[in-house]
Amino acid sequence: MILRDKPHALRLFFIIKGSVVPIVASKILFVTLLGTAVAWVEYYYSYLFPPLAVAPMAFFGVALSLFLGFRNNASYERWWEARKQWGKLIVESKSLTRQIISYIDFDKVGGETTKKRLVLLIVAYNHALRHYLRKTEPWNDIEALLGSSDVKILKGAENVPDTILLLIGMELSGCLQKDSISDFAIQNFDNHLTQLTSVQAACERIKNTPIPFAYMLLVQRTTYLYCFTAPFAIVASLGVFTPLFCAVIAYTFFGLDALSDELEEPFGTSANDLPLEALTRMTEINLRSMLGEVELPKPILPVQHILT
Amino acid sequence: MILRDKPHALRLFFIIKGSVVPIVASKILFVTLLGTAVAWVEYYYSYLFPPLAVAPMAFFGVALSLFLGFRNNASYERWWEARKQWGKLIVESKSLTRQIISYIDFDKVGGETTKKRLVLLIVAYNHALRHYLRKTEPWNDIEALLGSSDVKILKGAENVPDTILLLIGMELSGCLQKDSISDFAIQNFDNHLTQLTSVQAACERIKNTPIPFAYMLLVQRTTYLYCFTAPFAIVASLGVFTPLFCAVIAYTFFGLDALSDELEEPFGTSANDLPLEALTRMTEINLRSMLGEVELPKPILPVQHILT
Amino acid sequence: MILRDKPHALRLFFIIKGSVVPIVASKILFVTLLGTAVAWVEYYYSYLFPPLAVAPMAFFGVALSLFLGFRNNASYERWWEARKQWGKLIVESKSLTRQIISYIDFDKVGGETTKKRLVLLIVAYNHALRHYLRKTEPWNDIEALLGSSDVKILKGAENVPDTILLLIGMELSGCLQKDSISDFAIQNFDNHLTQLTSVQAACERIKNTPIPFAYMLLVQRTTYLYCFTAPFAIVASLGVFTPLFCAVIAYTFFGLDALSDELEEPFGTSANDLPLEALTRMTEINLRSMLGEVELPKPILPVQHILT
Amino acid sequence: MILRDKPHALRLFFIIKGSVVPIVASKILFVTLLGTAVAWVEYYYSYLFPPLAVAPMAFFGVALSLFLGFRNNASYERWWEARKQWGKLIVESKSLTRQIISYIDFDKVGGETTKKRLVLLIVAYNHALRHYLRKTEPWNDIEALLGSSDVKILKGAENVPDTILLLIGMELSGCLQKDSISDFAIQNFDNHLTQLTSVQAACERIKNTPIPFAYMLLVQRTTYLYCFTAPFAIVASLGVFTPLFCAVIAYTFFGLDALSDELEEPFGTSANDLPLEALTRMTEINLRSMLGEVELPKPILPVQHILT
Amino acid sequence: MILRDKPHALRLFFIIKGSVVPIVASKILFVTLLGTAVAWVEYYYSYLFPPLAVAPMAFFGVALSLFLGFRNNASYERWWEARKQWGKLIVESKSLTRQIISYIDFDKVGGETTKKRLVLLIVAYNHALRHYLRKTEPWNDIEALLGSSDVKILKGAENVPDTILLLIGMELSGCLQKDSISDFAIQNFDNHLTQLTSVQAACERIKNTPIPFAYMLLVQRTTYLYCFTAPFAIVASLGVFTPLFCAVIAYTFFGLDALSDELEEPFGTSANDLPLEALTRMTEINLRSMLGEVELPKPILPVQHILT
Repeated sequence: MILRDKPHALRLFFIIKGSVVPIVASKILFVTLLGTAVAWVEYYYSYLFPPLAVAPMAFFGVALSLFLGFRNNASYERWWEARKQWGKLIVESKSLTRQIISYIDFDKVGGETTKKRLVLLIVAYNHALRHYLRKTEPWNDIEALLGSSDVKILKGAENVPDTILLLIGMELSGCLQKDSISDFAIQNFDNHLTQLTSVQAACERIKNTPIPFAYMLLVQRTTYLYCFTAPFAIVASLGVFTPLFCAVIAYTFFGLDALSDELEEPFGTSANDLPLEALTRMTEINLRSMLGEVELPKPILPVQHILT
Repeated sequence: MILRDKPHALRLFFIIKGSVVPIVASKILFVTLLGTAVAWVEYYYSYLFPPLAVAPMAFFGVALSLFLGFRNNASYERWWEARKQWGKLIVESKSLTRQIISYIDFDKVGGETTKKRLVLLIVAYNHALRHYLRKTEPWNDIEALLGSSDVKILKGAENVPDTILLLIGMELSGCLQKDSISDFAIQNFDNHLTQLTSVQAACERIKNTPIPFAYMLLVQRTTYLYCFTAPFAIVASLGVFTPLFCAVIAYTFFGLDALSDELEEPFGTSANDLPLEALTRMTEINLRSMLGEVELPKPILPVQHILT
Repeated sequence: MILRDKPHALRLFFIIKGSVVPIVASKILFVTLLGTAVAWVEYYYSYLFPPLAVAPMAFFGVALSLFLGFRNNASYERWWEARKQWGKLIVESKSLTRQIISYIDFDKVGGETTKKRLVLLIVAYNHALRHYLRKTEPWNDIEALLGSSDVKILKGAENVPDTILLLIGMELSGCLQKDSISDFAIQNFDNHLTQLTSVQAACERIKNTPIPFAYMLLVQRTTYLYCFTAPFAIVASLGVFTPLFCAVIAYTFFGLDALSDELEEPFGTSANDLPLEALTRMTEINLRSMLGEVELPKPILPVQHILT
Repeated sequence: MILRDKPHALRLFFIIKGSVVPIVASKILFVTLLGTAVAWVEYYYSYLFPPLAVAPMAFFGVALSLFLGFRNNASYERWWEARKQWGKLIVESKSLTRQIISYIDFDKVGGETTKKRLVLLIVAYNHALRHYLRKTEPWNDIEALLGSSDVKILKGAENVPDTILLLIGMELSGCLQKDSISDFAIQNFDNHLTQLTSVQAACERIKNTPIPFAYMLLVQRTTYLYCFTAPFAIVASLGVFTPLFCAVIAYTFFGLDALSDELEEPFGTSANDLPLEALTRMTEINLRSMLGEVELPKPILPVQHILT
Repeated sequence: MILRDKPHALRLFFIIKGSVVPIVASKILFVTLLGTAVAWVEYYYSYLFPPLAVAPMAFFGVALSLFLGFRNNASYERWWEARKQWGKLIVESKSLTRQIISYIDFDKVGGETTKKRLVLLIVAYNHALRHYLRKTEPWNDIEALLGSSDVKILKGAENVPDTILLLIGMELSGCLQKDSISDFAIQNFDNHLTQLTSVQAACERIKNTPIPFAYMLLVQRTTYLYCFTAPFAIVASLGVFTPLFCAVIAYTFFGLDALSDELEEPFGTSANDLPLEALTRMTEINLRSMLGEVELPKPILPVQHILT
């Protein structure tokens, strides 16, 4: 995620970081060159292109706006829902931790060790879910929190976050059997586990179910067709301004397309994706400080305006 | 569901799989031929068509965009809600399984056999719901999970998924009567059954209540009228480019129409529908691995970019 | 609700059932005749109408699209929410029935008779709510289910569905007093009653609170003004094509208006309304089959593509 | 709220009640006169105004549509959410009443008197919330329901509805202390009180947090600028039709603006506001009939198509 | 937040307070001067700019409207969600207070002192969350409510609102251990704490996750390009009216951009932000009056139409 103040006036045009310009630069260049060629042809062979051609383009433009607008809304909603789900993960993690600390009588079940283990399992769940969504290796983070014996168990599992939830469930079950928690409270705890399952399922849904491929084809083909035919349509009205106008059109439409593409899958590590690492770290700090620990890791800060 | 990387530049135009082009090819061809004919007539009988005709078409185009945009949003929302409901099915299946394993004292009620039966009933519910929505035969899947005696009972039922829920309810009731589960916990379990009922009702709603037929007529008639009158309107401005433009217009509007049509009923087996088979298989793997089974079925992978 | 396959190509234009054409036919005819008259005048008194008049109409068209689009979305959302509420009714009815069968110890409270009565009261609630929303007489359906003594009580009531809920509440209260149900379970049951109340309140809201009347005036007046001035504006550009274009414009805008009007109040019995009768019948079949009855009514099937 | 059948054809244009025309009449008149003046000037000094001026206006019109569309959606959503919240108030009032009647053992706590008092307090809450939102005096309604002693207490309170909730809470607390209600049921009752608090907070939110003032300025200034410059832009294309067109434009845009303004704060007593009085009366009838009372107030009916 | 009556007619144009004009004045001025220069050039070197150039601008305008419309909706939704979350904070604070007063037997746990401390902790939470979101010092407010010993604890905490929740949890835990509250009620109380955590997480989400930076760049660059090229495109059609038109265009598009920018982060103290101070004060008054206190702070009133 990019965090920087709003730039003013001219500086606005020279920001590269976080801009989609690098991604679509080659397309903008191509359309601009095409526009130049068309303008050159028009200059030497006057009136080759019909002067009214711009009108049909205009309502084609309305259709394209519809397509891009739809795709953009869908992508943004996925991105924002992903952030909301991660917010729910934070709430559930904090609340379950608070309840564990408040309502379990740890004197009956291993005292501080069990308490700490339960909370660190929740922290580990956060890290594991992040690695799972980003397809990175979770073992360093998990080993630091839970030790190597748990790592061995988890390495054999189909789905690491799921298995951590099972481990939490087993610990709570143990507490219940030793009567250190009431039958009523355990059901309340369990609902938090259901909520965590639901966060995970929602994140998997967003990650694994892209916007239907046929949309992507329809939107992109239309965008290409539009930008490649635009020069022919506008050259009669704009003359030498054609290349400039082509560049702006290409930037506008390819840019929105590229941005929608980036937001559609918000768990990656590109510049506009969600800062999962910073969020997980912050949860770790909060939960461990609720345990009373004082040597806490540092929050992650943006590097060159980018928070990972 | 189609899973493939975003193609680049020219390759984009040669993808057929997942594209709506084959579905609307004949219509595109017809409109293009019409455009050619009109352009030919215009060439021989100059100025037959009024040069300003494009302006009225433009605001007709705005109305059409409104219609197609509305229908497209409604279809996409149905498709996405369907996916969300299936996600809820996964959450409820996993959570009920976890609670069954954690909070039932199976020593009092048949031990591992009962436990396994309960979990397999939940797996069977997932398969049965899929077959129910796709109108396919569920018996192979159910027999493999539950054995032939249950199949006999279910074959006599009005509604297979409903009856499986009743079987789960009866098993849980039996556990309650033998005091292997607390009165409080059973209500919590029961709420998961209510949630499963709610997923099923939502899927039936999406499947059985199409977008009102009159919309379909209004949208499609307008699309046809628009594409069939467009050549006459634009020929004066575009001349020989008319057929090309007709092809693009037809692709754009018929394509969006065809795609909306496909997404409206997302439980089918066409290329852009939801991969219910892969989702159910994954749930089966997850639930059976929670039972401690090690010989699990394999996840379903995309075949030629298509996940069923 | 209309259930029929998507028609193809030309057949599309000859479907009357479910189409809004009959409703708006007179308006289309009027606008077309007006267009003919204007074209005739233009033909004899050339250049009477300014050729550029179409441009102001175009942006008036944008405003009209905005109005119609808004109203259409609002109507469709009401229709779809109504269907969702009815889905919730199904879920709550089924779940309450399942819980009644599972968790009440009927040996203490009249055995099968009480059980059957409770379930039939829920079925009767479904029928009563349908009749209440459609303002039809519920007595036949209720007498067949509950007998004449209950009909007598209900005939004296202000609000039949409400009173049936009270009857269910009284039966459950009786079960509680005779200790045939736990204090905890009864609260869970009661929440289903609250949900049924909430479904009813939502249906009443949709039925009794139309989209503000001033919108209807604004939308309809603008539609009329637009369609009646369109011929004057386009005749200079379209000449003899004016009547055809007028017909299409009138169909498009009056058609959308008529359709929105029909969907706004979705509980009626017009062709695009919700099939409440079929839905209620299906719930009756499901609930009675959960009671173990075998002589069940038949599901309602579409008659001439229409499901009531 | 206005309740009347949809008028047909010409009659549509002569409805004043519920129309926004009276509110915007002076503005429509002004713009029309301006249009007449401009057309007169154009007639005497031909070609004063550039004939192409309408094109820039058209895309200014798109921007204005965007603004008005946004504001209109936001206002309508506030109006509809307000109605939903009031529906929730009805559900919670009815459900709490049903539970009070079913689950409190009134023999231990003052019998019918306490029961009646509890239900009338809920009725009083409904009336008090209505008066609170409409800033009218609630004392007549409250005294008729609760008597003068409660009125004295409530007159000293900061917030009347809040204090009625506290009185209900105190009564329920009394019931709990005398063991006439189970510890479990009381929590369920209490959740209804939380829901009532939530309805009240939502209504206060809608009432006290208008759409940001800067939007209002932006939308209105743009509307004025647009309507005041339109005559100059269209006179070249429309000639003598200019005043007519000005009137339509002014009606369309000022009308939507006035309507959005009215819906933004839906708790007032203007023609398109919510019929809080009728809704409260209906709740009073329902709740008192649940108490078994037979002398009930009459439902409020529309007077000259208006329900207050 | 700005609270003032809707101004009429001409006065509308002279309101500065709450308007975005001061923010965008320099840009409007620049575009107007550019327009003047272009009109001057056109006047001396006639026909320099192609007369049809306005058509391509028009559909560029459609794209820009799409961008601005999207960003505006996203910003407004953030602002409105923030207000809803704060409403939820009010509901949870009031409900928890009501339950604490009703269901805790304070005779066993320090009597009035504990009760008052619990309620003041909730008040302090409201103040602390406000200061946290606005990044201001909370110590004055907190010391006035809780005294200096708590301030000392909180000054050492990572996250002040979180720590206040922990303090509330500890007090409630103490009540549970001394049996002054039932096991069932405590879980209900705890759910309110979870809800408060969820409000805080949602506010942090809105504050810390801006709309993706790349959108801002895309929207703003397009706005600048549009406003800076508009004069060249329209000068041929509008002649001497060009500067006026430029001013209006710049006001419209830069104004919407500036307003979206302000609403995107609604917890600040600019004129259109949420009146957190007034809301918190009102909650303080309500909660303390529920404690029976009579010397209450005064509600905060708008100063020069602005409520902070």
